Amino acid sequence: MNYNDVDKSVVWGELKRLADGKNRTGLAADVAGCSVPMAAGLVYNWAAKAAGPDVVSALAALAGEQELAAKYQALLDGEVINTGENRKVLHHLLRGQCGKAVIHDGKDLGAFYQAELDRFCDFAARVQSGGIKSSAGKNFRTVVQIGIGGSDLGPRAVYLALDNWAQKNGVKKLDARFISNVDPDDASAVVNSVKLDETMFVLVSKSGTTQETLANELFVKDKLQKAGLDPKKHLVAVTSETSPLAHNPSYLDSFYIDDFIGGRYSSSSAVGGVILSLAFGGGVFKEFLSGAHEADLCAREPDPLKNAALLDALLGVWECTFLGYPATAVLPYSQALSRFPAHLQQLDMESNGKSVNRRGEKIAYKTGPVLFGESGTNGQHSFYQLLHQGTGVIPLQFIGFRESQRADDIEVDASTSQTKLNANLAAQIVAFAKGKDDDNPNKFFAGGRPSSLIYGRALTPKTLGALLAHFENKVMFQGFAWNLNSFDQEGVQLGKLLAKKVLSGNSDDNALDAYSKLLGVT
Amino acid sequence: MNYNDVDKSVVWGELKRLADGKNRTGLAADVAGCSVPMAAGLVYNWAAKAAGPDVVSALAALAGEQELAAKYQALLDGEVINTGENRKVLHHLLRGQCGKAVIHDGKDLGAFYQAELDRFCDFAARVQSGGIKSSAGKNFRTVVQIGIGGSDLGPRAVYLALDNWAQKNGVKKLDARFISNVDPDDASAVVNSVKLDETMFVLVSKSGTTQETLANELFVKDKLQKAGLDPKKHLVAVTSETSPLAHNPSYLDSFYIDDFIGGRYSSSSAVGGVILSLAFGGGVFKEFLSGAHEADLCAREPDPLKNAALLDALLGVWECTFLGYPATAVLPYSQALSRFPAHLQQLDMESNGKSVNRRGEKIAYKTGPVLFGESGTNGQHSFYQLLHQGTGVIPLQFIGFRESQRADDIEVDASTSQTKLNANLAAQIVAFAKGKDDDNPNKFFAGGRPSSLIYGRALTPKTLGALLAHFENKVMFQGFAWNLNSFDQEGVQLGKLLAKKVLSGNSDDNALDAYSKLLGVT
Repeated sequence: MNYNDVDKSVVWGELKRLADGKNRTGLAADVAGCSVPMAAGLVYNWAAKAAGPDVVSALAALAGEQELAAKYQALLDGEVINTGENRKVLHHLLRGQCGKAVIHDGKDLGAFYQAELDRFCDFAARVQSGGIKSSAGKNFRTVVQIGIGGSDLGPRAVYLALDNWAQKNGVKKLDARFISNVDPDDASAVVNSVKLDETMFVLVSKSGTTQETLANELFVKDKLQKAGLDPKKHLVAVTSETSPLAHNPSYLDSFYIDDFIGGRYSSSSAVGGVILSLAFGGGVFKEFLSGAHEADLCAREPDPLKNAALLDALLGVWECTFLGYPATAVLPYSQALSRFPAHLQQLDMESNGKSVNRRGEKIAYKTGPVLFGESGTNGQHSFYQLLHQGTGVIPLQFIGFRESQRADDIEVDASTSQTKLNANLAAQIVAFAKGKDDDNPNKFFAGGRPSSLIYGRALTPKTLGALLAHFENKVMFQGFAWNLNSFDQEGVQLGKLLAKKVLSGNSDDNALDAYSKLLGVT
Repeated sequence: MNYNDVDKSVVWGELKRLADGKNRTGLAADVAGCSVPMAAGLVYNWAAKAAGPDVVSALAALAGEQELAAKYQALLDGEVINTGENRKVLHHLLRGQCGKAVIHDGKDLGAFYQAELDRFCDFAARVQSGGIKSSAGKNFRTVVQIGIGGSDLGPRAVYLALDNWAQKNGVKKLDARFISNVDPDDASAVVNSVKLDETMFVLVSKSGTTQETLANELFVKDKLQKAGLDPKKHLVAVTSETSPLAHNPSYLDSFYIDDFIGGRYSSSSAVGGVILSLAFGGGVFKEFLSGAHEADLCAREPDPLKNAALLDALLGVWECTFLGYPATAVLPYSQALSRFPAHLQQLDMESNGKSVNRRGEKIAYKTGPVLFGESGTNGQHSFYQLLHQGTGVIPLQFIGFRESQRADDIEVDASTSQTKLNANLAAQIVAFAKGKDDDNPNKFFAGGRPSSLIYGRALTPKTLGALLAHFENKVMFQGFAWNLNSFDQEGVQLGKLLAKKVLSGNSDDNALDAYSKLLGVT
C-alpha cells in the first residue's frame, strides 16, 4: 500500500479547482436520494452538504488513490497501523471479528478480549445480585469511574446517552458517577455526594501511571479508610497487564486491555464496559457492541456512496482541506447525547490534530478541524447566531431520532415536544442550506452552510454503538486520507514534562518559574 | 461619536503590516510585568500573548480611534446602544451605578432593578425559612429552572461554579436543577429525579413566548397536577412586565426584567438571581453582583494596559481579524467552572458572530471566533493535541485559582492535587508559548501559540461576578471595535420561522417537507 500525502494525489488538482470555482449554496433536489443506510437502521443524509456529483466523484477517486478501504481492511486484519508506536489498532476486535484472526506473541487477541468481556459482565451480574457486597456488607448501589481523557469522556457520554433508556426499560442497576480532574474539588464533590458504604470505584488507567487518576485513587482510598471501610473491597481496576496496577491484591478484581486499544477508542473495552455493565447489565453493553460491530462491517464497503463513514470522512476532508473551513459543530437533537460532542472532540482532535505525516514529515495542508457542539434545541438559543450569520462557514453534523427515549411527552398547540424538536431540526438544516434573501442585510442569510444528518428511530444501546463506531471509522478514514497517524498523541507530552519539572522544583526555565510563582505553585 | 468600521481606521494599515511581518513565537521576558489588575483581586496576565509593544501600542491607538471607552461610558449612561432594536443596554445597572441615573418613560430603572433584587431576595429568604411552603405543606428543598439560552446557560454555569463553595461555607439552601431542551426526555428525566412535593419551579422567559419554555411549563404543571399538587403554589415566573406571563395569578410570585436586559447578559438579573438566591441565599447573590460591579467600574479606564477587559478585547481583535485565527479556547483549571465555557460560547458567539455593522451594512473583515472549551486538566487528555500540534493556531484563555473551593485535598508524591493542577496550568502556558525543538518532527512543538491567564486566590461569589462581567465587557468592547451591534440576534429568526411552518403543516418549501418527512415530523 502507498502512504502518500494527499497533495501528492493525482486528483488533488481537480479538487482544488472544484473548490475555487463553485457557488456552493443550496440543497440537493432529491433529499431522500442522498441517504446512505448505516448500521442498526440509522441513515446518513448528505443532501445539505452542498457537494455536487463532480465533487463526490473526485472524492471517490481520492478514496481510491489513498487506498482508504484497503488501509481500513489492513487495520481490521491486525497489521501494525500505529507505526510510530509499533502497535496494532484493535478496538474493532472488542466488538467482533471483521478481518483475520489476530495472533500476537502466540495470543489470540479476539479470544482475549472476549474473555475479558465475559469476565466483567459476570462480575457485574454478581455485584447486581448482591453476591459481591461492600466491606460494610451492603449491596452496591453506586459506581464511580476514576479516569481521565478516553477513560472518562467516552464512557461518560455513553452512560448519559443510555440512562433514560435504561430507566424506561427497567434495566437500570447502579447509578454511575465520574471523577476525572486532578482539581481536588472534583473528587471531593463526588465522594461527598455518594454513600461510600454502597459505592464501588472503577480505577481506569491503561498505563497505571496517569498522574490525575493515581492522585484521585489515593484520595478515594483515604476517604474509604476514614469511613471505616476496606478500600480493596470497593475498588476494581481496568488497566493493561503490564501496568503497576495489574494483578494487584489491593483490588476486588482487575480487567485488562492492552496497548492496541487507544484511550479515545476504548469505550468498547473494559474501560467503558465495566461501569456500563455495572450500571445497566452486561446484556445492554453487548447490544451496544453489536451496533458498533455492525458499523465496522459496513465501513468495509469501498464505494463512498454506500459507506456512510467513508463518505462523511471524505466530505470532511473536502471542507477542511479544500474549502478551508477550520471548525465543525456536532449538534445532536437529543438531550441524552449532551456529552457526546465532548467525546467526539477528543476522538477527532486528538486523532487528527497533527502537522506531520505517518513518516514524521511535515505536511503542507490543513488537517483536523476544531470540533465543538451542544445539544439542540439548546444551541439554537446560543451560538447558532454565528453559525447562521458569522463571517466564517462552519460545517454542521446534525443527529436526530424520531422517538424520545422516555416516551413521556405532552401535546401543546397540537404537537408533542418530540415533534417540535424534530421540526426545529428539519428547519435548521434547510435554513443553513438555503438561507433567506432580505433587503435588510441584518435579516439576510447567505445560506450555503453545509450540514449532514444522521437519524434513526430511537437512541438505543445498539444505535448508540453504531453511532460511536461511525465516528471512529470516519476519523480513521480521514487520518488515512491525510496520511496521518491517528493513533498517537505526541502533542500532550511536552506539557506533562514541564509539569513534572514544576513539581520537582527542577526547572531551568525562567518563564516556567515565573508562571509557577504567579500561580503559587513554588 | 463615530461608528466606523475597523478597516476604515487610520491604524488599520499599520496593524495589517504588523500582522504580516512578525515572528510571534515566544514569551515576554518579564512575565509578572504583563499583569493587569482586575476587580475582586483577580489578575489578567498576557505575557504569553506574543504581542510585542508595537502591537499593543497600535491596538491602543485603535481603541482611541474607535472610541471604545467613550462608547462604553455611553452604554453605562443609558444611551440607546442597541440601535437596531431601539433599546438601551442596562445589565450593568443590575449590579450598581456606573454612570448617570437612567430614567425611561419616567421610571428610574436603577431603582426598579434594585427593588426587584430586594423582592426576590426576600422571597428566597421566606422560602428558606419555611414561610412559603409547597401545596403539600412541605418545605421546598429543590428548585428547578425552566428556561433556555441565556435563561439557562449563565445561571447554570454560575450555580455549578458556586455549589462547592456554598457547601463548604454552610450556605447551601436548596438544590438546583435545570430544564432547557424541548426534547421531552430533558423535562421527564429532571421531574422524575426530584420530589415534586418539595420542588419549586422557576419559569424564565423574557418575552413569555419561548416555545421550549412554554412546552416545558405545561409538562411540569401536568406532572404536578397528576401528583395531586397545586401548580400555582410551585411555580414562580421571571419575565418582562409586558409578557403574557406577567401579573398572572397562576404563579406564586413573579419577578421582572425588561427589554434592556439581553438574554445572554441576564445572569445578574432575576433570570439568574431567583434561582441563585433560592439555592445560596440573597447575600451570596449580592456578593456576586458586587464583584461584577467592581469589574464594570474597572472597565471604564481608557488605557488598555490598565483595563483588562479592554486589553483582552483588543488582543482578541488582533488574533481574529489581523492574524486570522478562527477559534479560541477557554480553559478553566477549575472543575467548578465546567459549564462556564458554554456560557461564554453563547455570550461571545451570539453577540459578535455577525457580518453586518451597526448600520446593517456588510463588513469586509473577520469577526467573532468560534469559542469552545473544557476544564483543565481534563482537556489536556483530549483536544490539546490539536492545540499543540495542529495545522492551525487557536488562541487560549486560561483561568486558574491558587486555592480549591472545598479545601479537601491530599498530598501524593510531595504535592497536593491543587498544586498539581496549577503546575499543569503553568506548564501548559509555557509549552504553548515556547514550544520545543526536536529532530523528530513528530515530537517538535512550534510554539508561538498565544494564551492569556486570569488568576486569583479562589473562586468565590465575588471573583465569579468579576469574571463574568470581565467577559461581558470584553465582548462589548470587541463589538464596538468591529462596529457590530452585539445586542441583537437576527440569525436565530429564520430557523424559528421555518420550524413554525413545519408544525403548522403550511410549508411551501419542498426541501423543508422532505427533511420533515425524513424526521417523521409530518
